[in-house]
Formats: sequence, structure tokens, C-alpha cells
Amino acid sequence: MQLKYIYDGTAYTVNLTQPTNLLTLLRQENVPINAICNGNGTCGKCRVRCLGNAPEPTSNDRQALNKNELAKGWRLACSVEVNHDLEIECPPTNLKMDILTDFTKQTHSIEPLVQSHTIALNEADTDDQRDDWTRIKDALPVEAAEIDFSILPTLHDRLYSAFEKDNGKLQIDTYKNLVVAVHPVSEAKAPLGLAIDIGSTTVAAYLHDLTDGKLLEVAGITNPQRKFGADVISRISYTMDHPAGTLELQKEIVAAINKLIESICQPEDRGTIREIVITGNTVMIHFLLNLPTKNIASAPFVPVFLSPITLDAQDIGLKLNAKLTIMPGIASYVGADITAGIVACKLTEGERWSLLLDLGTNGEIVLGCKDECLACATAAGPAFEGATIRHGCSATSGAICNVNFSADPIYRTIDDKTPNGICGSGVLDIAAQLLLHGLIDETGRLLDSSEVQDQNLASRLRDINGYKELVLFGNLSDPQAITFTQKDIREIQLAKAAIRAGIEILLDEVKLNYDDIENLYIAGGFGNYLNITSAATIGLIPMELKDRTVTVGNSAGTGASHYLLSKEIRNKSQSIIPITQYIELSNRIDFMDAYMDAMLFDI
Amino acid sequence: MQLKYIYDGTAYTVNLTQPTNLLTLLRQENVPINAICNGNGTCGKCRVRCLGNAPEPTSNDRQALNKNELAKGWRLACSVEVNHDLEIECPPTNLKMDILTDFTKQTHSIEPLVQSHTIALNEADTDDQRDDWTRIKDALPVEAAEIDFSILPTLHDRLYSAFEKDNGKLQIDTYKNLVVAVHPVSEAKAPLGLAIDIGSTTVAAYLHDLTDGKLLEVAGITNPQRKFGADVISRISYTMDHPAGTLELQKEIVAAINKLIESICQPEDRGTIREIVITGNTVMIHFLLNLPTKNIASAPFVPVFLSPITLDAQDIGLKLNAKLTIMPGIASYVGADITAGIVACKLTEGERWSLLLDLGTNGEIVLGCKDECLACATAAGPAFEGATIRHGCSATSGAICNVNFSADPIYRTIDDKTPNGICGSGVLDIAAQLLLHGLIDETGRLLDSSEVQDQNLASRLRDINGYKELVLFGNLSDPQAITFTQKDIREIQLAKAAIRAGIEILLDEVKLNYDDIENLYIAGGFGNYLNITSAATIGLIPMELKDRTVTVGNSAGTGASHYLLSKEIRNKSQSIIPITQYIELSNRIDFMDAYMDAMLFDI
Repeated sequence: MQLKYIYDGTAYTVNLTQPTNLLTLLRQENVPINAICNGNGTCGKCRVRCLGNAPEPTSNDRQALNKNELAKGWRLACSVEVNHDLEIECPPTNLKMDILTDFTKQTHSIEPLVQSHTIALNEADTDDQRDDWTRIKDALPVEAAEIDFSILPTLHDRLYSAFEKDNGKLQIDTYKNLVVAVHPVSEAKAPLGLAIDIGSTTVAAYLHDLTDGKLLEVAGITNPQRKFGADVISRISYTMDHPAGTLELQKEIVAAINKLIESICQPEDRGTIREIVITGNTVMIHFLLNLPTKNIASAPFVPVFLSPITLDAQDIGLKLNAKLTIMPGIASYVGADITAGIVACKLTEGERWSLLLDLGTNGEIVLGCKDECLACATAAGPAFEGATIRHGCSATSGAICNVNFSADPIYRTIDDKTPNGICGSGVLDIAAQLLLHGLIDETGRLLDSSEVQDQNLASRLRDINGYKELVLFGNLSDPQAITFTQKDIREIQLAKAAIRAGIEILLDEVKLNYDDIENLYIAGGFGNYLNITSAATIGLIPMELKDRTVTVGNSAGTGASHYLLSKEIRNKSQSIIPITQYIELSNRIDFMDAYMDAMLFDI
Repeated sequence: MQLKYIYDGTAYTVNLTQPTNLLTLLRQENVPINAICNGNGTCGKCRVRCLGNAPEPTSNDRQALNKNELAKGWRLACSVEVNHDLEIECPPTNLKMDILTDFTKQTHSIEPLVQSHTIALNEADTDDQRDDWTRIKDALPVEAAEIDFSILPTLHDRLYSAFEKDNGKLQIDTYKNLVVAVHPVSEAKAPLGLAIDIGSTTVAAYLHDLTDGKLLEVAGITNPQRKFGADVISRISYTMDHPAGTLELQKEIVAAINKLIESICQPEDRGTIREIVITGNTVMIHFLLNLPTKNIASAPFVPVFLSPITLDAQDIGLKLNAKLTIMPGIASYVGADITAGIVACKLTEGERWSLLLDLGTNGEIVLGCKDECLACATAAGPAFEGATIRHGCSATSGAICNVNFSADPIYRTIDDKTPNGICGSGVLDIAAQLLLHGLIDETGRLLDSSEVQDQNLASRLRDINGYKELVLFGNLSDPQAITFTQKDIREIQLAKAAIRAGIEILLDEVKLNYDDIENLYIAGGFGNYLNITSAATIGLIPMELKDRTVTVGNSAGTGASHYLLSKEIRNKSQSIIPITQYIELSNRIDFMDAYMDAMLFDI
């Protein structure tokens, strides 16, 4: 039998010898399909459209898709067994992203571990029989210089080519005391560096000139591990169910980073990348290094490794001859990405305390000042990235990113495109607007249209088989309309309650109140669109801190860039670890209490 | 067409599509064939026997082989063009070697860079969420410990297996501050180390237990690069004529070392080898690291690299997960093997001066005391290894190793086998005996039998077409008899003159006379058989130093073992480099004078 699938405008054919699950097949084919629940049939995200010959809908199909969709051939890939010739179409994905880069300008000096030196040498003669390497070493202003073994074989030719055409002038790039590149000056280029943040959902890369620190390019890519589950726990489960699972996940992320490098850097410049700094949550770093994660998933939540480590990029299959440094992490659920965030927001540099919320696929909270730092993680879930929301999507082109029920239209989309979903900032706005306009009560119950005063808004409410929802875009009768559902409201309540409870616990731990806080930084994929008033309105952050709140975009990426560019920041990052206390929230009665309190809305 | 060849008792077949040189073919087939002149037809060593259908002898064949040999089908492989079906037999090679290991007992403490530590750990709980690596690091008595990236993926399983069966007890092996192995104590073994000396002719390996320094095994193998020429200059020429030649030579030596490791160490113990120390002459080290050697071959004789360097054994293709350290060298023709020899003989530790002669394929001479060291190299040629001698061979089973014209029989062979050639110590003895018994005059001319008094000896002399020789084994009429020729005497004269002139130049350089010398050490492949009186008789060494002369076997290998086993020796080796002055003999008038003087024999 044969599967034909159309993806991104191109048709592909796969021949099969035995019946195979469609999701499994598409994963093998590297189609970036969403499968948040890892194929359990519960998330309803792995939709594909059968072009004729669609199989009978399963009960999972019926739960996730409406009649109209089913009739049009939409099915969940995880529910389809390919046991006959089948032709399908996969929904497009849009990897263009909005990555905030302008926050937290560098205030430290640019002093990366990679340095360029220009030296001039004389040729050997019988009075000066020094070997090529000693000749270079003696001229190099670097103490106890050593040479990377891999560049030894070309050393001689580079040196003699400098004698031939550059009067013996060479550019020598060093990494600490190690010579990593030797070029005649006329062939030399400025050394480049890459900072990479591996998020559960998105991988972002920042290309810098290491001589002046300038940001040359930014690029992002969806983390292809999403095929194995949206959150870290589903991916850990995958590795526990599959003996080679960790290796598989490592290969996925390494291939993605290789792609990212290709997109961010011209082929002729790739050889000039001398260092990569990688940050990410602890699980992402474990997968990158092919380390087992099973102990991260269950108490006492112990990772294999949190230290910083430097290796050769090639050691893990990256196609670069560069040093690769992994930033240090704090705990299983407060990873190197949070260390990077602390660095970017200078959380451990102030006399006064500040807060950092990183709302990614997980939600991490840090409270810190120059002497002390506390961090916790909450299972906030990926609601703020739109993932568990019925029409949720990433903050990409066409996503509803701002909502104001008093405006017309009531929404704004990224790039002003026709709406195709709701991203995190839109989700926050909708929840806030529902509250402000009295469409939900303090328990989060969506009112019936008959209970709503504003007729315009009341007309947007509908009830489909007992499931209430608000139509944002599309006709009231259109089953394809983009809506916000009662269940979506519940997801937001759970997520904001967890974050808020985390904030309260941390403040309580050091007996602070809101007045003691200098700043509250919100990091995450929200980009420029996050409305801080909405966040305060729904109680995600304390209303008292609204005016001291700053959105900082991807602080992990910013921190990784700073780490790449400054020895001073590198040392500071390391000094964060011993002063940071990780607060385990699970099983804490006071956290449970605060969580229940924060579940309600303030009206 | 087809080539059938028999080697080591096995028949092989090669199908050819175009005419090919037989030596080239045998090299491709990895048959270890001697080709000292690198296929120029001048050395006469690459003999094979055609089994029927032998091609017409070339002029090179006629020069190297006698009529009888030609009739039996013997030809030089380099002279045979395989352009028709051919069946040949290759002469056997014998790799069993006599390697001296008992000289220079360790007097330093055993303190290798690899150390084994036993630690006991407790399992994690919610009060102690330290990651696996931090848990180990905190218990390890090593400052600023780091972990080798390659062992991280198995760290977790090793740790939990120790909790399961060994009460949390682990053996941790470190290399400096780097953790290189982690095992539950019940699965742990003592770490092993390998010292390897890469000679132009022979590669020797010494396997040590790194906990007590004990020598567990010794093994040797012929350097397969001999196919590309016996001496370093022919091999350098090969790499200059072939673009991928250096890589080819690297692959040959790496394959040989892999074989050596297989022979010296059981498969189950190979994973326990944690460090390899390699020494060798500068050219051998360059080939091992795939470095260009063309500048070593011509003035001002500048190598790429002489520093010590540490890499992962796998970086050059060795099948071991171990650290590989290359010892430091002194100059293009005074390599790391000589540094090792200086270490082994403690040349730079004495108040008084001593001399070291290393008579391998090249001849190096060192004069040193604790404050200062002088070294030079002479193109002594491989005569002392039997290579340029008509019936010369390595010091392997059946080689004539001692000769005394007053005894009966006049020779002794290694292992008391039927003679199959003459090794270096035999060559020295014959030259000395010829002198003592008046068979040569002071110019080295072999007398006619009519001029010789001793009838017994006179009857051993013969003249074949004007080429005079002495029959050692076999009938006077037997063309296959093992003989020592007039040309062999000339080879010895050239070689001993070069060495002796080197000794005189070094002594002159610091204005010493023989009385100032405490010891003269002779290193090289002579093994136990070298007769010091013979060496003094022919003037290779000064007669005045005869009683202060010691044979030390392979001092390079011994030095490498010491380097492997002792941090102190490692530091000492490094301190040898700055106090050692390399004396370039080429173009020195005083050397030429001394060389001419030393050419004659003292009668």
C-alpha cells in the first residue's frame, strides 16, 4: 500500500509493506506535526485532511473534530491506521517568529573567550630552527598557549602561505589559551559566535561578531521534538518507552540546530564560528547530550548534570569546528535557561529584590537580589504559548495577539494577517476582557448570552452540545470560527493560579511584600504583544506590581548572548548557582493553599 | 589478468584490469615487503619468487640477484610489471622481537596522571536533590574536578547500579582533574596504561598497571611504513610525491598500533586502558599526527611541531577511549624518542657528563649532565639494524647475533636456529673479527685469500665476479651461502665514522675529553647481544670508554614507560627541552674532518 501526503505545497509518496500508524509515519518522514499528548488521542492537535477514502472516524476523532470537519476528511493522525492506499494533506506550519532581542542592552565589556591576534613572523634559517608551532607560540601574547590538535595538519601550509603573500603576517584566533585558527591575514575573517536557546517549543539562535559583539542575525526554528510531546514530561515518557528514545531526541535537536546554523550563516562564514553557547531547560540539555531523564520525571527529581561543560561541537554531531559550552543550570525544573534569564535581567546584581517569570512551556519564577536568589517551577502548562487552548497557536504570523472587546475589530493579529489562531498574549487579553466585560464570574464560569448585558458581546456567545464558547472571528453559525471556550478559561485559571501561587510562596519564603519588589520581569514567547494590564487583571501578576512590570522577550537567549560575549558574565553566571536556592513546590501545603486562592478571579 | 600470491602459508588472488607494478600491488595488499629504496631498484630487498612464468630479469634483478636465484624465479618486486597471469611466493617475515626491558629500573615514585579513587555515596531524596555529577564531585578528593563528556551518558546507570549492588560504592578514575571512568566497585578494574615507541623499523608497546606501575606485557610489530622506504627520508619523499601520502602513512601506523593493542591486551581489558604515551622520532610523530614533513627533509630542517600534546586516542583513529600524550621532541632529527632515552638513562640528572648513542635507523648522539645537554644526529644509516647489509636482517629468531672467528661454529644465532641472516650485533662482531684476524687492512680492504695467514679463515674467502666476500654459513660454492661482503664493510665504515665523528664533535663542543665521561649508553635494537669490545675494536666508540659502556636496549620505550608512570618524570622531560642544544652537523667543516678521520680502522 501507499501513502501520498502533501506538505508545504509538495507531494510525497511512501510505500508501505505493513499497516502503520499515520502519526508514526509522518514522524519518520520528518513532517513537523503537532502531537502534544504524544499520540494518546487526547490533545486533538495532530490534524491532517484525508483527500478521499478517509477512514471511519474514531471516538478520539469525534471528540476533537466537529461533524463538518469530519465530513471534509479531517482526522487525527494518531487515530489513522494506514492499511490501504491513502492520500492526505498536512496543515502548513509557520516557523517565522517574533523574537525580542532589544531588551537588556549589554552594559558589560565585550570580552569573549575567543580572541583574535595578529602577529608577524620571520622564516626559519639555520640559526633559527624553531618548529612552526614554537615560532607562532613565541610571538603570541597568550600565556602558556597550546594548539588544538585538529588544526595542526594545516598549520604549516597556513604559515608558509603567510610568508609568501602577507609578509609573514598571521591572524591567530584563540579560545582561552588554545589556538583554534591560524590564517594568513589576507584570508582571515572576524571570528563569529552563536548563542542558542533550546526551548521545548522553539529553538532560537543569535549570531554575533566576536570582535565587537554586534548581533548579526537572529533565527528561530520549531523544536522538532514536539512530535514526541509538547512538554518535557511527555518527551521523557517517550524515552522511557523506547530504548533508543533519548538518542532519537538528541538526533532531532542536533539536526534542527544544524538547520538553524545553515539558515543563520552563509556557507563561507560557517567555518568562522568559533564558539557556541547553548542554554535551555534541564531536560532539553539532557536530550542534547544524550543523557537519561527518567529521574527528572519523578521525585526527588534528580538530573544527571547541571554543571557548565565545554566540548567540541562535533562531539554531538553539530557540523561546526567550534567549542560548545553548555550554561550551568540550577535544578531539574529550573534550568540553564533560567540562569541565562537571571543574567539578562541582572536579577542578582541589585540591592533590592526583583522577580522574573519565565512563561514558556513550563513556568519558572525567580526572586533575587545581589546576595540571594530563590527559584521555583510550576506546572503552568503551555497555556501561555497557546498550546492547550482550543484555537491556540504560537506567536507567529496571523495569530490573534491583542484583544479589546471595545475596539472594532476586537482583535489584532501578528503582521495584520487573517486570523489563524490565538497566541499567548491574545489568550491573556481575552481572559481579561471576559472579566472586565462581565462575561465570566469570579469562578471563571462563562455566562449564558441571556445573562450578558452588552448585546454585541452576547451575540458572540454560543453553546455547542453543552460546550459554551465565545466567537472571536467568523460567523456564529460557522463551525470553523475561531473561538475561546469554557475549557480554555479553565486552562488559563489553572496556569495563572500556579504562577501566582509560586510568586506568593517565594515572597513569603523571605518575608517580602509587594513594596519590596523593584521590578517584575516577564520573559517568554509573548514578544512585544503582551498586555501587562491584562496579566494583572486576571491576577497572573499582582495588580500592585503592574507599573513595575517589564516584558523582556526571550531572556534566556539574551542571557546566552551575554554569556558568549563576556568573561565577566560567564563568571557571574557561575556565581549565581551557589546563592540560588531551589524551592520544591510539590507536596507543600502552603503552595496548595495559595494555588486554590489564586484560582478565582478578582472582580 | 590475475596475480596469485602466497604469503605466510596462505594463497591470495587479485584480479587486475590493467598492468601494474608488482611492488605497488603488494603494498596495496598490505603484504609487509621490504623496500628500503622505495622501489628505485637499488636496495635489492623486495625479493619475491615467481612460480613459473617468471618475467625476463631486468638489469636491477641481475645486479641484486645471482644466476642461481634468477633461475629459481627470484625477482625484485619493484622490477616486475604484472601484465600477464602470474603466481608468486613472498618471503616470510618474522615479527617476534627481542626487546630489552630490564634496564633502568624505576627509581621514581609511581604517580601517573591517571588515579583511581573509591567513594561511597548516598541516594538522593527531597532534602538532597543534587544532580548525579555533583553528588560524585562533592565526594571526590580531586580539586576542581570535571567530567569527560563522553562518559556522561552512562553516568546515571553506573551510579544507580552502585546503589543497587555495592552500597553506593564507586570507583572513579581521573586523568588530572578530569573524571574519565565511573564504575560500581564490583565491576571496576585497575586502570591500565600503554607506552609506545614508534621506531622507523619497529613499533614497541609496554602495558602497565597504573596503580602499581607493574609491566604486564611487552609486544612489538614491524612498522608497516617500511613498504614506503626503510628510512625517514624515503618516506618523506613518498609523501612529497603522493598528495595523500601523509594520510596513507598515518593510516598505516594507526592500523599497526591498533593491531599491537589487540595483541598486548585482552578484549575485556582494552576498555580499561586510560592513557597512552607515545614517543618516536620527529618524522614518525609527524606521520602519526598527519603533519607535513617536507621541511624536515631540507635545510633549515624545520618540523611543524615538537611540543608535548594530549588528545583523545580516537582523534587519530586508535580504537581506545583513552588520553593520548605525545612526548616532546628536541629537533627534526633528535625526536621524542631521544627525549625518552635521556629520561631513561637519567642523562640530565648526573653531576658528571654521560653519553647516549641511539643506533636505530638513524644514529643520534647526546652528551649531557644535569645543567646542560647537547644532541646531534648523523645519517649513520640503518647498517646497525642490518638493513643495508647484503645478508642483514632484524634481531629476530635465526639471526646471526654474535661472531667469533676462534670459536666453532664461528657464529651464534638468536634462539639457536639455523642462520637466516645477520643482525646488527653480528655485523659489528664480524667487522671486529675481520680486523682482529687481519682479514681487512686499516682502509677496510678485504684481503685476498692468498694474503691471509690463517688457512681456516682464508678458505672462507671467495671472489664472485670481482666482488670479494667472506662465507659465514654454507659451502664456499653455494651461491645461497650467508656472506659478509666488501660492500658490507664499506657500509659499516661509513656508519661507524659518522657516529664516532658525532661523539668527537659533541665532546669538542664543551671541551671534554674521554676522562670526563661517566658512562656511555648504547641504545637500539641490538638487544642483549651487542659486544661492547667489538664496538670499541672497530672504533664505533672510543676504546677508552669501553669499560664505562652499558647497553640499554630500547631506551626510548623505557623512557616512555617512565613518562607514563610518573608526573615527576613528565616534568623532568619537559625541563630537558630548554637545556638541550641541538648541534646541526651538516655543513660543519670540523665534522667532515672528524668523519674522514674516523673512516679508517685502528690497527
